[in-house]
Amino acid sequence: MSPYTSFALDAWSARQLGAVEHALQRWVAPPEPVPAPAGLGDAMRYAVLDGGKRLRPLLVMAACEAVDGNPAAALRVACAVELIHAYSLVHDDMPCMDNDVLRRGKPTVHVKFGQAQALLAGDALQALAFELLTPDDGSVDPAVQATLCRMLAQAAGHQGMAGGQAIDLASVGRALTSEQLHDMHRLKTGALLQASVMMGASCGVAPAAARDALRDYGAAVGLAFQVVDDILDVTADSATLGKTAGKDAAQDKPTFVSLMGLTASRNYAQELLSQAHHSLKASELGHIDALSALADMLVNRNT
Amino acid sequence: MSPYTSFALDAWSARQLGAVEHALQRWVAPPEPVPAPAGLGDAMRYAVLDGGKRLRPLLVMAACEAVDGNPAAALRVACAVELIHAYSLVHDDMPCMDNDVLRRGKPTVHVKFGQAQALLAGDALQALAFELLTPDDGSVDPAVQATLCRMLAQAAGHQGMAGGQAIDLASVGRALTSEQLHDMHRLKTGALLQASVMMGASCGVAPAAARDALRDYGAAVGLAFQVVDDILDVTADSATLGKTAGKDAAQDKPTFVSLMGLTASRNYAQELLSQAHHSLKASELGHIDALSALADMLVNRNT
Repeated sequence: MSPYTSFALDAWSARQLGAVEHALQRWVAPPEPVPAPAGLGDAMRYAVLDGGKRLRPLLVMAACEAVDGNPAAALRVACAVELIHAYSLVHDDMPCMDNDVLRRGKPTVHVKFGQAQALLAGDALQALAFELLTPDDGSVDPAVQATLCRMLAQAAGHQGMAGGQAIDLASVGRALTSEQLHDMHRLKTGALLQASVMMGASCGVAPAAARDALRDYGAAVGLAFQVVDDILDVTADSATLGKTAGKDAAQDKPTFVSLMGLTASRNYAQELLSQAHHSLKASELGHIDALSALADMLVNRNT
Repeated sequence: MSPYTSFALDAWSARQLGAVEHALQRWVAPPEPVPAPAGLGDAMRYAVLDGGKRLRPLLVMAACEAVDGNPAAALRVACAVELIHAYSLVHDDMPCMDNDVLRRGKPTVHVKFGQAQALLAGDALQALAFELLTPDDGSVDPAVQATLCRMLAQAAGHQGMAGGQAIDLASVGRALTSEQLHDMHRLKTGALLQASVMMGASCGVAPAAARDALRDYGAAVGLAFQVVDDILDVTADSATLGKTAGKDAAQDKPTFVSLMGLTASRNYAQELLSQAHHSLKASELGHIDALSALADMLVNRNT
């Protein structure tokens, strides 16, 4: 049991997500005053709006809160990491990758708009993420903007998310060692989740030791997230998940469950959760309630 | 005849490109010390190295020179814009887009590495462009980094290159008006060419009037580049171009040649070249020889 269960995560999340959804509506290729050309904006908005758990934005906002950071900067970061996540799903779902037709309970972008438009929408969402991080309205210190762009680029690129997806591709039908599986997930999903925490923290100032502790928290939470994802892939149904369940096994993809079994995977997720709580405590930061409750929620979710 | 023909463009270009090629070799997913996972680095390097005219990097270096800017910053910008260009070609060549098998005289990335790896390599190259713009080694002022990221994101995104490609997709087999054709190319190729000039200029300081003039130069050169591309598509052969000639006509794509005819297109290219020279003169900047000679070369090239 977490020591922070008295924190009202639902109310906190609802407040944060209200701001994030409003910002996404306003910033993602809005139809007014000048729509993106040739339906591209529609595909971009479809990929991002009205769906998803928004875990990464919540981690950003919680980490910013932990360091008493600039909320205006954090809101931009929250949207930027969500755009990177959304673009990766659009491309990952395409026929040449996972070839999935269902996402968040809706047809995937390439099913709805065609493959070419899906490819472009993903590309444009990645560019937009960096555009959101670099406003010239005085709301975010330019040096912070540069740091945020660097962190996001590293997390999204070949030594981050894209690299993890390349390992994922190469691993289909092959047995991976525990170390290889960890490496894959550290990059594929872990890098962006950890970056969400660290970018949120970069919206304020924290001692080096606190930043190190947050980095450990981000690594533990990022890995736990994937372990739970693998568990849910075999224990939940498609309607609950809003995406195709059982597809890892169907595609013969290595997972934590296939490697260590269901019970050991569940124990591992709880162990990672303990590590996350330990790191938060070690950070000696003041406002860690939201980060703590988010870790609990990530591990104990059922969708 | 340009008033700057005494400038030794070949020697200047060779010097700049030596630095750019060396930097790309060093910065694009180098195999040492830690290679990008699962062959992703190979696909990224194949897409970027040993090929291409490097027009965008040359425009960056020339614009930086025009404002006596920071050459270390310009070298990063030169590589970043080339990575964006290279990723766009990788994605554009894929079967769901232009379905092209030949590029720069070699098999396209998806032919060589498979579609999934091509998709990921393009994604990772876009991220790497922003990583190159945001070094934390003190070589580029952080405020300049933020400005450069903003300019690149805008030029690459839905109101820039990606938007232009969406118009291109939607235009196949349709008659476009002259205004629609201009809009498409202003975004599809013009935005990144113009950004190359303006980002190069942002590596230094220039009066607002000079920046406006450089923006006009970039717009004229960007458009002229596309007009000449359309001319070469019907007048050159594949071996000379290093890519499939005549494909616009084969795919029933609207071009300047199909809209206005070959002679009028050639006249238009020369008219745009005159505009470019006029803008350079209006900039009142000191070192415009390279920018001037590049404009001549872009319009009078035969590949």
